Amino acid sequence: MDENSRRNFLKKAGAVTGATFAVGAPAVHVARKYNWRMVTAWPPNSPLLGEGAEMLARLIEEMSGGKLKIRIYGGGELVPPLESFEAVSQGVIEMGHGSSYFWGGKAAAAIFFTAVPFGMTAQQTNGWFYAGGGLELWQEVYAPFNLISMPVANTGVQMGGWFNKEIRTIEDYKGLKMRMPGFGGRVITKAGATVVLSVGSEIYMNMERGVIDAAEWVGPYHDYLMGFHRTAKYYYYPGWQEPSATLELFINRKAFESLTKDLQAVIKTAAYRMNLWILSEFESRNNIYLQKLINAYGVQLKRFPDSVLKALKSHTKDVMDELTSKDPMSKKVYASYSKFQKDVSAWAAVSEIAYNSILGL
Amino acid sequence: MDENSRRNFLKKAGAVTGATFAVGAPAVHVARKYNWRMVTAWPPNSPLLGEGAEMLARLIEEMSGGKLKIRIYGGGELVPPLESFEAVSQGVIEMGHGSSYFWGGKAAAAIFFTAVPFGMTAQQTNGWFYAGGGLELWQEVYAPFNLISMPVANTGVQMGGWFNKEIRTIEDYKGLKMRMPGFGGRVITKAGATVVLSVGSEIYMNMERGVIDAAEWVGPYHDYLMGFHRTAKYYYYPGWQEPSATLELFINRKAFESLTKDLQAVIKTAAYRMNLWILSEFESRNNIYLQKLINAYGVQLKRFPDSVLKALKSHTKDVMDELTSKDPMSKKVYASYSKFQKDVSAWAAVSEIAYNSILGL
Repeated sequence: MDENSRRNFLKKAGAVTGATFAVGAPAVHVARKYNWRMVTAWPPNSPLLGEGAEMLARLIEEMSGGKLKIRIYGGGELVPPLESFEAVSQGVIEMGHGSSYFWGGKAAAAIFFTAVPFGMTAQQTNGWFYAGGGLELWQEVYAPFNLISMPVANTGVQMGGWFNKEIRTIEDYKGLKMRMPGFGGRVITKAGATVVLSVGSEIYMNMERGVIDAAEWVGPYHDYLMGFHRTAKYYYYPGWQEPSATLELFINRKAFESLTKDLQAVIKTAAYRMNLWILSEFESRNNIYLQKLINAYGVQLKRFPDSVLKALKSHTKDVMDELTSKDPMSKKVYASYSKFQKDVSAWAAVSEIAYNSILGL
Repeated sequence: MDENSRRNFLKKAGAVTGATFAVGAPAVHVARKYNWRMVTAWPPNSPLLGEGAEMLARLIEEMSGGKLKIRIYGGGELVPPLESFEAVSQGVIEMGHGSSYFWGGKAAAAIFFTAVPFGMTAQQTNGWFYAGGGLELWQEVYAPFNLISMPVANTGVQMGGWFNKEIRTIEDYKGLKMRMPGFGGRVITKAGATVVLSVGSEIYMNMERGVIDAAEWVGPYHDYLMGFHRTAKYYYYPGWQEPSATLELFINRKAFESLTKDLQAVIKTAAYRMNLWILSEFESRNNIYLQKLINAYGVQLKRFPDSVLKALKSHTKDVMDELTSKDPMSKKVYASYSKFQKDVSAWAAVSEIAYNSILGL
């Protein structure tokens, strides 16, 4: 879609959106009905991501007794995947399902709400969002765009990615062409890699054609469905770049405020459910698919060497220093994130980490 | 409350419960309204547990646009805390908020849905419930009681408990009088301890009076509020007995089925939200209160010696063997739980555990 046809489309799209009223005889309760649209950054019907968007919509419709109907559009069906932020910000589309790190060019601090290299796990990140001020900071970052946002899925700890050669030292990143978005991409750039970004559906092709040498996506379950094991044989862990990745539901503020209180609560609560449910699905399936990749497809599971991880951690510090020194909002968000991570890690040392260490006794 | 007055109460309670209809002029939408009651096992207004029940009720009322109102009763206000299962099973009360391990005497397998010693963490347990068949098994266990049930809170990894003496060897459990419910209590009984159970509000008093020598409750945040640091100075970790503890929302099946589909979805989704929110609160607060306990109250934080944990693990195996050999439903549930734990632990080894191990590099 070129710029002109996109604008025309947005105008046309705007004309048919909005709320409608149920008609009928005078009534004690005349429920106002809403027909909304949601754009996503995912290929239509893609498992768990697109599927999560579909489930969210069905759940909202069900809980609202049909008062709020949401029609889903896959990436590119209504607007190009990376235009959804603008379409929802302008209010021509009511809501979007995506990843906040897509919008780093519009609001630098947005990236923190997806994933932070050497940052927090899913449980800890949710602690920060729901009980540590993270969600409030997210609203602050999105406010200038007339958007509100909330977590709607989490992948858990990701894998480190697929490589067509082994990574033995940090030098192996020099000249490496890799698909890695967000902060992770900036970190490997410091190590000499070239980041080549593309939407999910193009990564496989780029790997196969040698446009890229390596790619990071999610984890065993989702990566298997994407077929990366047919293009690269080394599968690295742990996912230092995304120890948890949050997907977002973003909503035009005015559209949200036009809803009755019950529907506002319905949306927020449905987002909590999807956030927990999708993480549960990943937890449940990742090992099954990891074993399949190893045993049926000969994938070689590799741990990054400590020296490589140490170097990546040091580059991460540089990336954060640069960003927070030039963008005050990023400084504010990262300060909150880091403080929370410090506290929650001290607790992890006597809870999850200590507990995991006794299971082998 | 004695048995007679309880029965009379239940009869009287039954007379005023049930659904009412909104009255008014003929209407397109006449929303059916429900006034429900929820009994809890917690002291009225107790933080996070009772508070979670209150929030759940408000959330359901809000999302339903006032169609489903739930009035909460703290433990003992309407029925004694440990009678709530029966009251909801009989249908005189619509719903209850508690812990499934209270009902081990009625259905042996119920205990698995709260916590399993050396079992799964919160994230893994939720994986089992929501995407691994755990929730379906729970329904099977509760079906004979006309109840459905679902997770409504998780504490995360608990602490090992408060002790008035140090635990150096497994011999130190001989003659120890300890508050520890569920499977954990059975395990330390094998080690020679005497389990003394009491509701939350009585534990402090029992510690102070020397009726018990040790007590396990939740973790730093909640334990601080209970004041245990004023009665014992050794605070042990990790909580081998409850690596995560799920609280439950249980509902009379007939009452649930009488609800419209939207309200059924509202209840289920609100329970997901509370499950995630309460865990997030614990994650956010535990370290702050742990530091306060150590620094302001001189509590001594201790890790159980490996030899003690090994012995407790061996006793756990005996407890499970005994239970599963005599109760087929427990065998079925434990088989599902163990299979899931094996898979999810293999995944943890390359995800959370591997990730946590690189943070110190």
